[in-house]
Amino acid sequence: MTATPSISKAGLEGVVATSSAVCYLDGTNGVLAYAGHDIHDLARHVTFEEVCFLLWHRRLPTRAELGDLQSQLVAARPLPDGIVRLMRSLPLGTDDNAMDALRTLTSALSHFDPEAGATSPSARYRQAVRLTAQMASLVATYGRLAAGGGMVDPDPVLGHAANFLLMLNGERPSAVEARALDIALILHADHELNASTFAARVTAGTLSDVYSAIVAGVGALKGSLHGGANAEVMQMLIGIGQDADDARVDEVIREKLRKKEKVPGFGHRVYRTEDPRATHLRRMSREVGERAGDTRWFEMSQRIEAVMNSEKQIDANVDFYSASTYYLLGIPISLFTPIFAVSRVSGWTAHVLEQYANNRLIRPRSEYIGPEYPQPFVQLDDR
Amino acid sequence: MTATPSISKAGLEGVVATSSAVCYLDGTNGVLAYAGHDIHDLARHVTFEEVCFLLWHRRLPTRAELGDLQSQLVAARPLPDGIVRLMRSLPLGTDDNAMDALRTLTSALSHFDPEAGATSPSARYRQAVRLTAQMASLVATYGRLAAGGGMVDPDPVLGHAANFLLMLNGERPSAVEARALDIALILHADHELNASTFAARVTAGTLSDVYSAIVAGVGALKGSLHGGANAEVMQMLIGIGQDADDARVDEVIREKLRKKEKVPGFGHRVYRTEDPRATHLRRMSREVGERAGDTRWFEMSQRIEAVMNSEKQIDANVDFYSASTYYLLGIPISLFTPIFAVSRVSGWTAHVLEQYANNRLIRPRSEYIGPEYPQPFVQLDDR
Repeated sequence: MTATPSISKAGLEGVVATSSAVCYLDGTNGVLAYAGHDIHDLARHVTFEEVCFLLWHRRLPTRAELGDLQSQLVAARPLPDGIVRLMRSLPLGTDDNAMDALRTLTSALSHFDPEAGATSPSARYRQAVRLTAQMASLVATYGRLAAGGGMVDPDPVLGHAANFLLMLNGERPSAVEARALDIALILHADHELNASTFAARVTAGTLSDVYSAIVAGVGALKGSLHGGANAEVMQMLIGIGQDADDARVDEVIREKLRKKEKVPGFGHRVYRTEDPRATHLRRMSREVGERAGDTRWFEMSQRIEAVMNSEKQIDANVDFYSASTYYLLGIPISLFTPIFAVSRVSGWTAHVLEQYANNRLIRPRSEYIGPEYPQPFVQLDDR
Repeated sequence: MTATPSISKAGLEGVVATSSAVCYLDGTNGVLAYAGHDIHDLARHVTFEEVCFLLWHRRLPTRAELGDLQSQLVAARPLPDGIVRLMRSLPLGTDDNAMDALRTLTSALSHFDPEAGATSPSARYRQAVRLTAQMASLVATYGRLAAGGGMVDPDPVLGHAANFLLMLNGERPSAVEARALDIALILHADHELNASTFAARVTAGTLSDVYSAIVAGVGALKGSLHGGANAEVMQMLIGIGQDADDARVDEVIREKLRKKEKVPGFGHRVYRTEDPRATHLRRMSREVGERAGDTRWFEMSQRIEAVMNSEKQIDANVDFYSASTYYLLGIPISLFTPIFAVSRVSGWTAHVLEQYANNRLIRPRSEYIGPEYPQPFVQLDDR
């Protein structure tokens, strides 16, 4: 006798799990907007810091409000000494564990936050700001130490994206480089109830703390069906080889399709049109390539996109052109997914604060498909 | 112009998110069964190790299979030196951060697992066994160090529950104490798509790794609407005071109800009858109390239950009598929720392995309720 409700939609596809004022996503028409502001406007006109404010407050900041936020970010950027010691004790520099390190380090930040246990909306907001500042410091410093460099202090005069590149590379980025990363951070900042944001909201829904929720987000983002895909795209491009001609590119992709292997950077659960973020990243991949005098990765990406369009009618997603863009900005592949977290922490925290403000435990059911109940009990020696 | 689907059920209540062979839960009739085996049979007849095997394999082990599993647990119990060093570097002994430490330490275990990146079913199964062994070692050792004691090595001859108490207290527990904890671990091992298990499955659904999924589970369990409730129950009992008479107990609870404060340990999203786990924990609370010559916490708990039954028609849940049971076993309150994780890691890993075996990204939608799209863009100085 077993009776549980039967499954609605595998993977909760199309199921509405909550209401939210953070992100408007229309997959049919290819519209992405943060609190009503179209992603194309934001990518053209504002900075990542303005986007953070927008996600947290549902409106763009005044100049004074932006100045306040910038000051809070400046104050929060330096990492606690204990975190740097912990970072140095982790196995650095092996390519595939930067997300594991980021998960551990983000969790450890809570031990150094005197407000970690505070639950007032204002205390949680300050945690959102601090986590957003420190996620960038963690990733940049991790990348710096993994490359054998010495720690670089953030510069209070620089914005968030420029500070990230400074702390990673030890030198001030050009305005073009800083703006390229700034736009990438804007484009990745939020995407409605994507899996990592959902993991963060499920965690916050038990009234656990902000750190626990963001750590869940980092862990979920790591997966190859989510943030992990951008690193896989670049590994694929390198695997094909910079010297491969178009015919070779076609051959590799067609072979993958024949073998039913996943081609990373294509397709999306929600979009039925081009991902509006891909539009900007495609342009950036070309521009950064032209500037670096190396447009081969961009051209190869375009070729792959053409094959995927014609063979499978699948569009490039946010991960596809971010790969070659980051690569040409000199960012190591191991940091591609962590950089996604540097951006998405703004959206995670916006959703988590929203969850607390009108909380209900997120607790679905499962359809039972196991051995029939009740199973007779058999003593150990008679099994 | 905004159009997203509208919300189905707040908190996904009653929504079926996946199929699963791990746990059968009938909230109407108060039935809980792991892979078809009624929780009452399991609480009476088997050990936590047999339950782990049951959750992972959907059948009870033979004696040989149980022996193999016990050997694997013995091998995995000692913590890596780096984990102990990290543990000693955390702020120990402050009452309310044991779950934060457990989250950081569980995440850090991945850095010491040479198989951490492996994705084969057998490698992931070994990670499930190791994590289950090591979660107990983490919590017991943390408790031991926090109390100022020296580290205690596990004893290969003892079972999982007895080893936990040995590592925590520095002496072998009595058979009755060990069996009391063993039963508590059995009762907490799985509970279908509870919030922490769901967070773990959402994380695994991106094809992130087992550690990331379990860390998400730890973070979600921490919340006061989930595992955090058992510590709150004991804090409430102590707040009322061991010397309070029944009239005083009634007064405190009625006052809480008048103020619409939550009374921890009561009510459940799924059960419409008594939580079948509470039946066992009520008995254990009485028995452990009688043995300790201190039945006041049990009697106070019974009185509270009677008030809640008559005033609100709400039944005690798994957290209510586990509080006084653990307390009388000499376990510090700060470890109550971590002990929940020591047990639930078995269910988390069972669900995560099941998720990988038939994966689909868990990615629902949200209903957009923010500023209307499209918002006009206004330059910074004109806002």
